[in-house]
Amino acid sequence: MSLEAFLDDFERRNWQRVSDGTVRIAVIGLGWWTVDQAIPAIDASELCETTVAVSSSSEKAKRVAAGVETATHGLSYDEFHAGEAADAYDAVYICSPNALHLPYARTAAELGKAVLCEKPIEASSERGQKMVDACDEAGVPLIVGYRMHTEPAIRRARKLIRDGVIGDPVHAIGTNSQAMLELSSDPNQWRLDPELAGPGATVTDIGIYPLNTCRFLLDSDPVAAQAFMQSAHDAFEQVPDEHTSFMVEFDDGTYLAATASQNAQATTSLRVVGTNGEILVEPAYHMETEIRVTRDDVSVTLDTPQVNQMTELFDYAADRILTDAPIGPDGEHGVLDMRLIEAVYEAGESGRVVTLD
Amino acid sequence: MSLEAFLDDFERRNWQRVSDGTVRIAVIGLGWWTVDQAIPAIDASELCETTVAVSSSSEKAKRVAAGVETATHGLSYDEFHAGEAADAYDAVYICSPNALHLPYARTAAELGKAVLCEKPIEASSERGQKMVDACDEAGVPLIVGYRMHTEPAIRRARKLIRDGVIGDPVHAIGTNSQAMLELSSDPNQWRLDPELAGPGATVTDIGIYPLNTCRFLLDSDPVAAQAFMQSAHDAFEQVPDEHTSFMVEFDDGTYLAATASQNAQATTSLRVVGTNGEILVEPAYHMETEIRVTRDDVSVTLDTPQVNQMTELFDYAADRILTDAPIGPDGEHGVLDMRLIEAVYEAGESGRVVTLD
Repeated sequence: MSLEAFLDDFERRNWQRVSDGTVRIAVIGLGWWTVDQAIPAIDASELCETTVAVSSSSEKAKRVAAGVETATHGLSYDEFHAGEAADAYDAVYICSPNALHLPYARTAAELGKAVLCEKPIEASSERGQKMVDACDEAGVPLIVGYRMHTEPAIRRARKLIRDGVIGDPVHAIGTNSQAMLELSSDPNQWRLDPELAGPGATVTDIGIYPLNTCRFLLDSDPVAAQAFMQSAHDAFEQVPDEHTSFMVEFDDGTYLAATASQNAQATTSLRVVGTNGEILVEPAYHMETEIRVTRDDVSVTLDTPQVNQMTELFDYAADRILTDAPIGPDGEHGVLDMRLIEAVYEAGESGRVVTLD
Repeated sequence: MSLEAFLDDFERRNWQRVSDGTVRIAVIGLGWWTVDQAIPAIDASELCETTVAVSSSSEKAKRVAAGVETATHGLSYDEFHAGEAADAYDAVYICSPNALHLPYARTAAELGKAVLCEKPIEASSERGQKMVDACDEAGVPLIVGYRMHTEPAIRRARKLIRDGVIGDPVHAIGTNSQAMLELSSDPNQWRLDPELAGPGATVTDIGIYPLNTCRFLLDSDPVAAQAFMQSAHDAFEQVPDEHTSFMVEFDDGTYLAATASQNAQATTSLRVVGTNGEILVEPAYHMETEIRVTRDDVSVTLDTPQVNQMTELFDYAADRILTDAPIGPDGEHGVLDMRLIEAVYEAGESGRVVTLD
């Protein structure tokens, strides 16, 4: 590849099929992520607008809706389930605790609405599969919100790997940590409650980034997992994985070794090493992504335009909804991730390799 | 710590106790590492000189000795074991295939010579323990050649961790890979022969770097291991670990997740993440070491003088031999590493956590 081609070949949105049309979105779950990240990202998107806000309290929903120019309705969860204002939106964005994704997705599917759902797909693979089935039966698209799949730098890294720039991938190391208790001091937050979060607090919520991003970069599926995990801090009493270290074997033979913690210095990194080179993504997952490509002892660092990852995700989802084009991170993709996450927890508890059949 | 103190507090050799005296060294095993790295490093050292060269062939030994100004003797292995020219050296540097460390160390100990031995200590922990016993019985020092222990940047990183700069260590990720077949195209090289190398080719030879460097940085001992490993290339037919991914749990609760390969792009890195910061060592292990220290979102990269790591190792060993000061990487340290390495291989074979009792 010539240097000119290397520099020019950065397609910000090589997935895009339409440039007009609007998908009207009902945002479900009005926590800080929805209010501070998702709604502004929708506002900045080409193909989406927020028309409905849904929350536990009708008052809160109406208050949030009132602050969004395009929004016409604020609904309680009960009102949503009852099908109120169903004519006002075409799709839902579900950003609730994991174990509540299924009921909202079911209602949305029954109402004929497309579903964009935050990762992980649900609190268990079984419940995730029920979401897939509900959307399949209703004939509505289901997209899991893996925003790394539409991060241009990650897509570029994936293409370079596919083009053989690093030779055959051999192994990868990744890490993702944050100080969750400093981000939210609420000791009752749902991520610490297995009834709402699923099997744990860290692999499900942030370990999923190195795990799924590696899967996406390799274009391979996981086949086995091993793990260490522990919780020491009181706040993590009900979950096994305040801190964790885990490994994944992929079906192309590549290994990922990773660490993650919800109670440590924030840090993000993913490195894929091949027979002839390596790609380092650092910072990696959270609204800032840089990649460095090395062959032998020569490296280049790609300085690409930093996009709003949530805007990319929403426009990607809208593009899929408007065109019926194949979805990369679809429900089956999300269910397999959840099966892998369950394997990681089972491995951490049993001290044995857990294979995905 | 003030910035001035931070910058000034870089003690290149805070272990040094004597600045004069000479330890005369018999170098055993005249492969490229000894000839191209060790002998020039001894030549550049303050406290050592090469006086004897020992090899399978007396001719080769004499030829190498003739090229070293300070050397007076070239011996065959048989001549060495027979005690020839024993008055001409005070210590041995053993750089043979792993499974031959023990006989040379035994002879050296019987002759009252100090032993500096390349890592890993031997091809098994049992044989390593026999080296420890032989040196103990003879009352001679045994030093395992972990050159990261005397690498100034690594020592500085260790001090920063001990001083609490990153808070409590939580997890670490590391990697070490190289294209061994390109470094030496000999298909019969000893690293691929379990009779000479020990349980494998990669964990023993290069996985030991992230493993032991993490152990040194944390000042903690390993308690358990898990691993994936595989060999696909014909050259690796007799060893299980052309590529490997492994994890170690340390007795302070910290996890290390690591990857290593003898048949991939050369890459080295080690990152220790704590509750309040992280230390990244990259490049990490091979004659070039840089550290980056981060707390919250502020980082500093330490640009420290790059030493000849082998010269540091030889002067450290000589300093210990001349002063009888306690040895960091002593025989027991090397045996515990070998027990950990054996646990990694056992884990890779069994698919289970292997604990060190």
